[in-house]
Amino acid sequence: MTHNIAILGASGYTGAELIRLIAQHPNIEIKALSGERKAGMEMAEVFPHLRHMQLPTLCKIEEIDFSGIDLCFCALPHKTSQQVIAALPTDLKIVDLSADFRLRDPAEYEKWYGNPHAALAQQEEAVYGLTEFYRDEIKAARLVAGTGCNAATGQFALRPLISAGVVDLDEIILDLKCAVSGAGRSLKENLLHAELSEGYNPYSFGGTHRHLGEFDQEFSKLAGRPVRVQFTPHLIPANRGILGTVYVKGDAETIYQTLAEAYAAEPFVQVLPFGQAPSTHHVRGSNYCHIGVAADRLPGRAIVFAALDNLTKGSSGQALQNANLMLGEKEEEGLTMAPLFP
Amino acid sequence: MTHNIAILGASGYTGAELIRLIAQHPNIEIKALSGERKAGMEMAEVFPHLRHMQLPTLCKIEEIDFSGIDLCFCALPHKTSQQVIAALPTDLKIVDLSADFRLRDPAEYEKWYGNPHAALAQQEEAVYGLTEFYRDEIKAARLVAGTGCNAATGQFALRPLISAGVVDLDEIILDLKCAVSGAGRSLKENLLHAELSEGYNPYSFGGTHRHLGEFDQEFSKLAGRPVRVQFTPHLIPANRGILGTVYVKGDAETIYQTLAEAYAAEPFVQVLPFGQAPSTHHVRGSNYCHIGVAADRLPGRAIVFAALDNLTKGSSGQALQNANLMLGEKEEEGLTMAPLFP
Amino acid sequence: MTHNIAILGASGYTGAELIRLIAQHPNIEIKALSGERKAGMEMAEVFPHLRHMQLPTLCKIEEIDFSGIDLCFCALPHKTSQQVIAALPTDLKIVDLSADFRLRDPAEYEKWYGNPHAALAQQEEAVYGLTEFYRDEIKAARLVAGTGCNAATGQFALRPLISAGVVDLDEIILDLKCAVSGAGRSLKENLLHAELSEGYNPYSFGGTHRHLGEFDQEFSKLAGRPVRVQFTPHLIPANRGILGTVYVKGDAETIYQTLAEAYAAEPFVQVLPFGQAPSTHHVRGSNYCHIGVAADRLPGRAIVFAALDNLTKGSSGQALQNANLMLGEKEEEGLTMAPLFP
Amino acid sequence: MTHNIAILGASGYTGAELIRLIAQHPNIEIKALSGERKAGMEMAEVFPHLRHMQLPTLCKIEEIDFSGIDLCFCALPHKTSQQVIAALPTDLKIVDLSADFRLRDPAEYEKWYGNPHAALAQQEEAVYGLTEFYRDEIKAARLVAGTGCNAATGQFALRPLISAGVVDLDEIILDLKCAVSGAGRSLKENLLHAELSEGYNPYSFGGTHRHLGEFDQEFSKLAGRPVRVQFTPHLIPANRGILGTVYVKGDAETIYQTLAEAYAAEPFVQVLPFGQAPSTHHVRGSNYCHIGVAADRLPGRAIVFAALDNLTKGSSGQALQNANLMLGEKEEEGLTMAPLFP
Repeated sequence: MTHNIAILGASGYTGAELIRLIAQHPNIEIKALSGERKAGMEMAEVFPHLRHMQLPTLCKIEEIDFSGIDLCFCALPHKTSQQVIAALPTDLKIVDLSADFRLRDPAEYEKWYGNPHAALAQQEEAVYGLTEFYRDEIKAARLVAGTGCNAATGQFALRPLISAGVVDLDEIILDLKCAVSGAGRSLKENLLHAELSEGYNPYSFGGTHRHLGEFDQEFSKLAGRPVRVQFTPHLIPANRGILGTVYVKGDAETIYQTLAEAYAAEPFVQVLPFGQAPSTHHVRGSNYCHIGVAADRLPGRAIVFAALDNLTKGSSGQALQNANLMLGEKEEEGLTMAPLFP
Repeated sequence: MTHNIAILGASGYTGAELIRLIAQHPNIEIKALSGERKAGMEMAEVFPHLRHMQLPTLCKIEEIDFSGIDLCFCALPHKTSQQVIAALPTDLKIVDLSADFRLRDPAEYEKWYGNPHAALAQQEEAVYGLTEFYRDEIKAARLVAGTGCNAATGQFALRPLISAGVVDLDEIILDLKCAVSGAGRSLKENLLHAELSEGYNPYSFGGTHRHLGEFDQEFSKLAGRPVRVQFTPHLIPANRGILGTVYVKGDAETIYQTLAEAYAAEPFVQVLPFGQAPSTHHVRGSNYCHIGVAADRLPGRAIVFAALDNLTKGSSGQALQNANLMLGEKEEEGLTMAPLFP
Repeated sequence: MTHNIAILGASGYTGAELIRLIAQHPNIEIKALSGERKAGMEMAEVFPHLRHMQLPTLCKIEEIDFSGIDLCFCALPHKTSQQVIAALPTDLKIVDLSADFRLRDPAEYEKWYGNPHAALAQQEEAVYGLTEFYRDEIKAARLVAGTGCNAATGQFALRPLISAGVVDLDEIILDLKCAVSGAGRSLKENLLHAELSEGYNPYSFGGTHRHLGEFDQEFSKLAGRPVRVQFTPHLIPANRGILGTVYVKGDAETIYQTLAEAYAAEPFVQVLPFGQAPSTHHVRGSNYCHIGVAADRLPGRAIVFAALDNLTKGSSGQALQNANLMLGEKEEEGLTMAPLFP
Repeated sequence: MTHNIAILGASGYTGAELIRLIAQHPNIEIKALSGERKAGMEMAEVFPHLRHMQLPTLCKIEEIDFSGIDLCFCALPHKTSQQVIAALPTDLKIVDLSADFRLRDPAEYEKWYGNPHAALAQQEEAVYGLTEFYRDEIKAARLVAGTGCNAATGQFALRPLISAGVVDLDEIILDLKCAVSGAGRSLKENLLHAELSEGYNPYSFGGTHRHLGEFDQEFSKLAGRPVRVQFTPHLIPANRGILGTVYVKGDAETIYQTLAEAYAAEPFVQVLPFGQAPSTHHVRGSNYCHIGVAADRLPGRAIVFAALDNLTKGSSGQALQNANLMLGEKEEEGLTMAPLFP
């Protein structure tokens, strides 16, 4: 059985990545692609790497007939997404890749994003889209909110540890290294090749990065009490990949066992042998997340590493994984391609 | 029906690329992987990006039982390959990725590679593996010789033009830009990141690059008289991709029409609209070759551009495409994934 | 004796590069820096790599008192430069880094740049700034027009050969590879790291690149008859560097001798041993140009390679070299730092 | 007055960087360059970016007449250095760039480097070469031991804080990001462009990196009691640069003031405005170290960032800075060039 889908915001990187992945899916057909500023253009012009595919011409959202659409991916900018989704048919299944429906508490949303939420009903309904931890809710959901790519990385490293209570909740430091595609296709000076390549720097440090809203929400919920982690992202001269280096206090072996057991049956989360660390090289272009654990020389301290591709497992791959659950498809369908190395 | 295959030389980039592609193939099963110096190791150690796959442990070639193998990919170094293949069962189907069986004339082989050929019988039997131009021979072949990655690029740009006689055969210049993975996983100073990134240079220029042997053989055969092109490859700081810029004398529109018609029905060769040029960005990790044609301001001159991924269409993708033909599979099977961009 | 200078357009890459170079010059003092949109900002904010220097605050051009300025560098955008320079004091020495005063024929200017020239008097007065070939004129000039960076590269390879008549003037092909900083600090999608890194492509091909105006003017003047070369630039994923690969017909040894003699006494142009090729790696951040010559296997054909740093020898280094001549300083002053490698 | 120097191990990156820097020094002349395996070669062959310089031919150490040498830089591999230095004239001033003389306690040396020290007399005599903190000792020293590049980065961030007692000594975490040239010109698979570019990973984590020996020694000495920091280096796809992200417990404002005061008079250490972070882009190719301090949202926590160029301030620039002190030269001589950006 074929599912018809639409992608809103198909002219950005996450939209293009969705198309790349869906091209490998036997049961999903792309019926509509929107791109407000590029409406009327062919995808071959916007993303020449997709020129071999038969794809709908980019259109405006208002031109889409949603009656024949089974599921809609929203890859729109933050704030735009909530406005658009509020106006979509109320029985349309939606996977949103923006930040708009990740935070359940409207006050938290406003705190991190600066504006009152414009689609409160949908916000209440939305299910947090970290597939491995919300499978049942996602299967039953109409609207799934994809996680932040950094937020996903940190949670893969930490959720089982917080649930199991094997790390000191007040001493968690997440030092993150992100590639540039996470910032999207936006024209900013610091994203130019000449500004970015051959150097690196922290950004949004000190507790200001918006993905902290997700960490606060999810980790506190798991722990049953407020948890506030320290989080410092860095921009690295590469196109894809996130590496999280997580400093925790706890017994390294116990931490390793906890993670190894938590992910033993997960197809997309691979826990490396104890003492080994992952590399973003080895997950590029794939839906896999690699996790490593090492003991520090300082007793009672451990380091947990998590690596994933921000555009795939951190965004569009996760979105397709969720769509598979919502559509009754096999969760892995279209997502098992090996990473691209070198 | 499942075909059992072996990959000899699985610890190099083309070996790993074969595994990545075959992972998407529904009817091929990997039964054996050899790697002389790394025999006994798991692929997850040699190529951690493949750790999610169930793969045979690396072994020595002599440990492989070829009786159950339908087809063998040889991704061994030049010179080694001819020795190994000479000793393999004579009824085993083989796709060789080395340079050893590309040149039909033993004297030409010795001229370009410096040693007398050690497997003359197999050399005589081998079919040149540029799929789009040798389909029937490949379907019937036992041993197919994969082309050089640079040689493939130049031929996609030039073969239809030489066949049709629409360019001056004595005035062809091929300026090539290659990414570094074409040099393999070898430990050479000029392949270090610190030596290569942020700069670029020509190499093997002046008529010394071995792929000229393939150009000479193939173009002369097409033209029915000796054709000698000028060929200058350059090493570019990127991991995958070849861009050929071909300077020809002829009518640009005629040249365009000739190429457009030649590749109209080809699934993997895409001719762009007249006046547009391809980019290696848009073929990365895929089996597609993009071709562009433009007129120069100088009358009677045209530029033909061809872009492909050296590890995929230029090597392992071509190899799988050939194997599909040899095994009676659909030619595109396992090869239709979209390029990875960004 | 100290010379006081101003830099107009100091917030772009060529402006910053001028400051970097002048910092090594014992006899030049920077008195004013303009940046229209960033007026009022400190250079430490605009270019944090210059934060250790004591520099004037960015101002608007109209705020500069030119009475105390000995020489003014104009690193403004094309078209803006001619308007600004037309309004500057007529006795102020000027080195212009834009394209506005490179072409002597107003019709040629309009053909390549699309607008009638707005400062014809100054255009007539301007001296073409390729130092090695216009030394005497530059020493006497009030207004020097810096060359295009691609135009400089091609001319270093070809001028002595055209002057000496040792190559076929109707068969010159210049295949150029440029790094991205040549495009400036402009916010364009194709200059983003995610769009540019790990791939490469031609641009402005077929005879449309504006630097052809310079080639036509200079090469025709040298030859005493019209010369039209074929020119195809490519964008390479690196920040600095231009490599020109020039295909010529002529005797390779003669070509080599001609170049070796022409540059024997030049401090900044290095001719490599016959048969060796330069790399952009080895000129990065310096004012040196490396030239190589090789014979092709095809008789009567040679390849000339030229490599330089587009921001230094191709632009700001050349500008300082010219300013030294105009100010009576030693030509090499401030310009002898070694390239940065790796 | 001109000082004659020799560089032992001039065929590696730190040797080449020394030459690049000394080229800007008015009072130092290079009299001898050694390179065991490349003895007899010209530097133009080994490092073509230095081809414009008049330099001695590479020789073997035994061929050098040290009687006319005022100071010798040793850029030899670890373990080799101690053997060579033990045999040099005992009145020769030496700046060693290896790890051999950094640790004062022979037991600590053996613990981290695995072999008994072979030059105990010299080890006892050596002064630790972090210029800003050992100026007086360095001025009087015969043998100065250059610091590790990572060790320098961490110490610039932390020494004043530990001295002033404004951070919790038991809660220091140093997450470091290093470019690849720190690993030298060695032929290792993980240093290949194809393995390194476009990805990143931790290495020598968990308390195993040898620069911890320096941290332990220096921080404990400052604190007057054992201090053990947590240290996790990561390999980043860039050629030059180290960024240290240091997590400390203490008052961010106090920490900032402490650092600002400590470095107020230092020419090469720049403390950014409070709340700003440095980037390795802005120190590339220079002897500057940029330091930033930010408060975290978690009370009592701060983040200190330090960025420098591993080959310059982290190694060869530091070495020249020390040599200047030992030779009675101005400390900044030859070291004030601005960073190369972009």
